[in-house]
Amino acid sequence: MKTLTGVPVSPGIVIGKAFLYAENDFPEIPRYALRKTQVESELKRLNNAKTAAMDEVKAVHERAVKEMSKDQADVFAAHLMMLEDPDFHDQIAAQIKDNLRNAEWAVWEIAHNLMQKMMSSPDPVFRERAVDITDVCKRVLLHLLSIIRVSLSELDEDVIVVARDLLPSETLTMNKDHVKAIAMDMGGRTSHTAILARAFNIPAVLGLSAASKEIVDGDILVLDGTAGQVFVNPDKKYLDKYQKADDLYRKKLDAFINLKDLPAETKDGCRVSLKANIEIPEEVDQVLLCGAEGIGLYRSEFLFLTPGKAAEEEYQFDCYSRVLKAMGGMPVTIRTVDIGGDKILPNFQSIDEKNPLLGWRAIRFSLALPALFKTQLRAILRASVFGNVRIMFPLISGIEELEQALALLEEAKEECRKKRQAFAGDIEVGTMIEVPSAAVTSDILAEKSDFFSIGTNDLIQYSLAVDRGNEKVSYLARPLHPAVLRLLKMIIDNAHAKGIKAAMCGEMAGDPLGTALLLGMGLDEFSMSASAIPQIKNIVRGVTIEECRALYEKAKQSASIQENTVLVKSWMAERLPSVII
Amino acid sequence: MKTLTGVPVSPGIVIGKAFLYAENDFPEIPRYALRKTQVESELKRLNNAKTAAMDEVKAVHERAVKEMSKDQADVFAAHLMMLEDPDFHDQIAAQIKDNLRNAEWAVWEIAHNLMQKMMSSPDPVFRERAVDITDVCKRVLLHLLSIIRVSLSELDEDVIVVARDLLPSETLTMNKDHVKAIAMDMGGRTSHTAILARAFNIPAVLGLSAASKEIVDGDILVLDGTAGQVFVNPDKKYLDKYQKADDLYRKKLDAFINLKDLPAETKDGCRVSLKANIEIPEEVDQVLLCGAEGIGLYRSEFLFLTPGKAAEEEYQFDCYSRVLKAMGGMPVTIRTVDIGGDKILPNFQSIDEKNPLLGWRAIRFSLALPALFKTQLRAILRASVFGNVRIMFPLISGIEELEQALALLEEAKEECRKKRQAFAGDIEVGTMIEVPSAAVTSDILAEKSDFFSIGTNDLIQYSLAVDRGNEKVSYLARPLHPAVLRLLKMIIDNAHAKGIKAAMCGEMAGDPLGTALLLGMGLDEFSMSASAIPQIKNIVRGVTIEECRALYEKAKQSASIQENTVLVKSWMAERLPSVII
Repeated sequence: MKTLTGVPVSPGIVIGKAFLYAENDFPEIPRYALRKTQVESELKRLNNAKTAAMDEVKAVHERAVKEMSKDQADVFAAHLMMLEDPDFHDQIAAQIKDNLRNAEWAVWEIAHNLMQKMMSSPDPVFRERAVDITDVCKRVLLHLLSIIRVSLSELDEDVIVVARDLLPSETLTMNKDHVKAIAMDMGGRTSHTAILARAFNIPAVLGLSAASKEIVDGDILVLDGTAGQVFVNPDKKYLDKYQKADDLYRKKLDAFINLKDLPAETKDGCRVSLKANIEIPEEVDQVLLCGAEGIGLYRSEFLFLTPGKAAEEEYQFDCYSRVLKAMGGMPVTIRTVDIGGDKILPNFQSIDEKNPLLGWRAIRFSLALPALFKTQLRAILRASVFGNVRIMFPLISGIEELEQALALLEEAKEECRKKRQAFAGDIEVGTMIEVPSAAVTSDILAEKSDFFSIGTNDLIQYSLAVDRGNEKVSYLARPLHPAVLRLLKMIIDNAHAKGIKAAMCGEMAGDPLGTALLLGMGLDEFSMSASAIPQIKNIVRGVTIEECRALYEKAKQSASIQENTVLVKSWMAERLPSVII
Repeated sequence: MKTLTGVPVSPGIVIGKAFLYAENDFPEIPRYALRKTQVESELKRLNNAKTAAMDEVKAVHERAVKEMSKDQADVFAAHLMMLEDPDFHDQIAAQIKDNLRNAEWAVWEIAHNLMQKMMSSPDPVFRERAVDITDVCKRVLLHLLSIIRVSLSELDEDVIVVARDLLPSETLTMNKDHVKAIAMDMGGRTSHTAILARAFNIPAVLGLSAASKEIVDGDILVLDGTAGQVFVNPDKKYLDKYQKADDLYRKKLDAFINLKDLPAETKDGCRVSLKANIEIPEEVDQVLLCGAEGIGLYRSEFLFLTPGKAAEEEYQFDCYSRVLKAMGGMPVTIRTVDIGGDKILPNFQSIDEKNPLLGWRAIRFSLALPALFKTQLRAILRASVFGNVRIMFPLISGIEELEQALALLEEAKEECRKKRQAFAGDIEVGTMIEVPSAAVTSDILAEKSDFFSIGTNDLIQYSLAVDRGNEKVSYLARPLHPAVLRLLKMIIDNAHAKGIKAAMCGEMAGDPLGTALLLGMGLDEFSMSASAIPQIKNIVRGVTIEECRALYEKAKQSASIQENTVLVKSWMAERLPSVII
């Protein structure tokens, strides 16, 4: 039995069959001349391949309409139109009949010409459509060549997907009914695949280095998304053990789901709000299922990565509206675009920054491109009539940036008024506190903020001068560092002193190790991946605010991470032995 | 008249002739067969080229002995030995006589063989000697080819050096008697050329982008190292104006030099200590000339960049001892190696970190390589008997790291004791406060530190999440950000509460804009480039501690960088109108 160890990014235990997802290289194109007598049968071969391709696309499109957003389904509708286009067909057929070329060559020739025309268009929308032609062309070619490649959207049996790397679009469109778990060579806790796996509640282990080489298609795997391990072809003893653990985990999940409609309230009646972090509108179902009381962080970056739609006001308006409607009056907190750092937008940014995490990102990017920023703000404003929207600005480092962002929001409002576009009158505007200078001057920032949302991931990275993605130093990024606790307390106290609420949307908010401490410090709102909500609610409901405050008072005396860790772990073990931390 | 604008990195105005420093590409090697009758004259040509090369090397070596350290001079002695080596000569001559190859071909053939042997040696010292062979070989080839290339160490008239980029070694070995100023396409305030230019008091403007293309060899230049401008072939009016400004600047410098032996004391008798930052022992003359009361920061990285000597204990011991002896009992604060970030050590580090400033650097590097770290600590300990040494650890982020470093220092002491190597009994060990988490927990760190030294460059970068080297965001890195002032005050107060001194060795310590504020906050020790000391001393002696405290009390109320800047500038203009800020 082989054991592979990686980064646990989405919890749960799955036993299943490995599906080795090959990277979709374009097939080699065979080129040969036909004899006249072969033309008829070659045209038939072309038609068969096209029909097979159309059947596939129709099936994917149907599922996309049901499961995904309209825009994602539209992509497949466009593919279908192309396959049904008589012009496209005639051009290929002419290559076969007149030039006596084999069908693969003919398809490639015509598709390639079309692609080149698209690519040289001055219109970016056309340029991005070239990708769709490649997709359609490849699909037909694979049928002509009788190469069977199952795409992740077309899976029809339960599998554990094993891949070197997955594109966000591949993760997004995969058939979630059949993908039971994900094992990937690349990636870490904050990669898109990790975020989406958590969003869709699919157990996943990333950063496995060589899983796609060590594992063979059809291997039986045990994937432990909580411990970050993958066991390849385990013997029966192991299988039984994990089957039991899996059952236990599912029972616990079921118990958590029962918490759904109960309030997040301590035993002595202190109520806090547990909200969810999302990236895409498709996650809302999961959010509601887990009993979130709203969305504490809607990461809007994904909207900017959709080919052909990037940053369009109508597209953004549509996405925001859908989420707001689906959340039915519960608060939806949209973070304005946080591009840069580890999220690069090819059209706008170069990737030659030496330290992108300390570079041109988030609000710095938005303030430098006010037209783009105001497009987003107008889309949010217009969507605001459909629900309870809140706006927050990422990576604010001082009052000047906040003032500039607020001024641009006023401009966006004025622009909406001029166009007679309605927006809600009482939109709350908050500041993300994730830069140490913002924490240290949070009293000043509170004057102009309706709420704070603490981004612990960045706050910890900058406070400790550590890139969490760098395996040589990531050991230093610990939320229980006394400096982190002091900064958090400072932020919460400064918020309360000015009568505003302190929320948290970084990873610490969903980490059971931090819950009691954060309650003790007075945090009002915890926002996390939806799947973490039941466990955190369970903790909240299992403690008193009194004892949490006492715990924080003790932690305040600690000089080191080590002391704090021992303190919190033993405190938890005593009160909530069932919680795994 | 062309005007080029760059980054002012070393102040002063110089009028002079441009020397365009071409990058030293290796010459093309002509290859042809000799007739037998040509052999004799070819051997003569070889001898002439070798003699000319030897004369050059002798001259450089002589000057190096006088002006540079023994180690740097030794490099040239080794070059001379190679040129005089009869084996080396015979091998080349054999190529000419037996294989009838031209002299260039022969020299290249033999040197190349030798280089390859060296490069494949398992011993890094041998591998690094390959560079010396390249050097010697190139020198002979240039003479054979009658290519005249003046190296910066061989300049014999006053010039302003114009270059695309300079290696630290090129800046180090250039003839400082004749290099009157430096204009460079690349580089910024913290690049090595900038640091060395300030150390040697040579006005310099870097980051000029295309100076090496815009300027022609022999152009007359006015270089204003204070404003960051270079004027190419200015007309007489400009020349006169700058000549006057130059005279004024010199007079001011002379006046400053008169401050040399006066104490750094406010008008109402508050004494502070002004110390110097150095990188190499050669800077000590300048340090003493400027009236420094010791060395507040000896950056030990340069020792690790010397080819063939990197990290050798004896070599380090020699350098530390020389500085300690030259400083005659004044404190010399050695920062243990701060490799990483923007300073990469090829033998130890990879350059594939995505965010090197948040990566494996400084104390993280030293703690991960305890043998290397203890070598440095032993070298410092052994040198301690020659003067007043202090040790400080860079980039401490929490008490755990400080405790580990102190434990390794104890081990190093034990190792010295075992070898009966003497060291001073009362060496002060300090902590650099340059990570926000260290600032926020400076009360805890003070318990185990004999002093603090605040590194404002990194502290500002991390506190504001800004890479100062990234031109798109460097505008954010401002020492007068209210958060920075609050953190500084916190550090100073925490030091004093535990009865230890607070020093500062970042750029802010030498910035006239910060002096009064820092005095008001209670900073005890300012360490800066030696050339900045007179100006800062002038400010210290021109104010009272009372009014500085009042200034700080006002700054405390400010909400923004803008407010603080206006406040400090108007305060300075009123009291010290002659100070340029």
